[in-house]
Amino acid sequence: MPSAALSPSQPPTIKFLKTPTSQAWVAQAIANIDIILLDHAQCERKAAGTAIQMMSRYPSSDKLVRELTAIAQEELSHYEQVNQWLDKRGIPLQPVAPPPYGAELKKHVRRQEPDRMLDLLLVSALIEARSHERLGLIAAHCPDQPLAKFYRSLMASEARHYGSYWLLATTYFNANLVNERLTELAEQESKILNTLHPEPRIHS
Amino acid sequence: MPSAALSPSQPPTIKFLKTPTSQAWVAQAIANIDIILLDHAQCERKAAGTAIQMMSRYPSSDKLVRELTAIAQEELSHYEQVNQWLDKRGIPLQPVAPPPYGAELKKHVRRQEPDRMLDLLLVSALIEARSHERLGLIAAHCPDQPLAKFYRSLMASEARHYGSYWLLATTYFNANLVNERLTELAEQESKILNTLHPEPRIHS
Repeated sequence: MPSAALSPSQPPTIKFLKTPTSQAWVAQAIANIDIILLDHAQCERKAAGTAIQMMSRYPSSDKLVRELTAIAQEELSHYEQVNQWLDKRGIPLQPVAPPPYGAELKKHVRRQEPDRMLDLLLVSALIEARSHERLGLIAAHCPDQPLAKFYRSLMASEARHYGSYWLLATTYFNANLVNERLTELAEQESKILNTLHPEPRIHS
Repeated sequence: MPSAALSPSQPPTIKFLKTPTSQAWVAQAIANIDIILLDHAQCERKAAGTAIQMMSRYPSSDKLVRELTAIAQEELSHYEQVNQWLDKRGIPLQPVAPPPYGAELKKHVRRQEPDRMLDLLLVSALIEARSHERLGLIAAHCPDQPLAKFYRSLMASEARHYGSYWLLATTYFNANLVNERLTELAEQESKILNTLHPEPRIHS
């Protein structure tokens, strides 16, 4: 969990996450890097779509609109870059079935406002934090050096994204409330990933 | 309607549209430019969301995915710019109720594939063509010269967008079929705008 002294220049770290990713996931991902690339492209496109949906749901929330516009732009740029990697490796664009992760997390989003806004921001923060951790693991373990370098290049903005979502939560909600709810959701997030999904995915 | 000799360097012109915009719309828009700016921001955000939805619906259609990624990026950049204009004019971000235009057009999208794909591409092409025409009218009639200049600056990409949607339609469908369906949808589009919507909007 981020410390109280956190400032925009010090985004919350991987402490966001209750449990680190297992070696089993790393082995699964590295052995199936082409499928991971296809799934990763979808994750970036979905992240852009989710940011736009939130801008549409909270159109008067000035800071949220501006921050999420920047995030959506970056996600689309990553999507484009991952698609270029697929092209370079001769992998035709194709859909892959998503793992249960996103749908399971969504179940914990409360329906009443303003709870919903808080939960949506924190669920996005957790997804970005987990992506940051796992893209870092790919960067560290991928034997294809140019691809590993590409994954390293994405890490800074993934870190910025989860920092932004967390800071937005503290803009619109009391910091204690944010940290309490973050703890609850982070526990759920780790629980969902406890069992490795049999299909290799960014969030398997 | 675009001619058969159309090439990517010659995007289809305003001939796409069956009926030109009335002077009544111009008067309404210029007299309510602040509301038009708020509605315009929403149009750009929606256009980005629609492009991402199509990328998600047709994830294996390589050319579509690549073209629409570029379009979504441009729409988000315009959204950001319109929001900056709102800020400059001291207008707080706020939602405005959409006119019936989008929902009415959507009624003409057939549900079965591949008809749906063709209709979605052509409806987007028509919306972009109409936006191009109307942003051009604002550029020509807006007494605030810097704002008029901004609207002129948007026109080239709006033209590219409707050209792209039309070219995507001709990539995936026979040109005669595209032109026939475009004629039908363009008639509906003009019919929807026959009566000026009482609230000032880009598509009132």
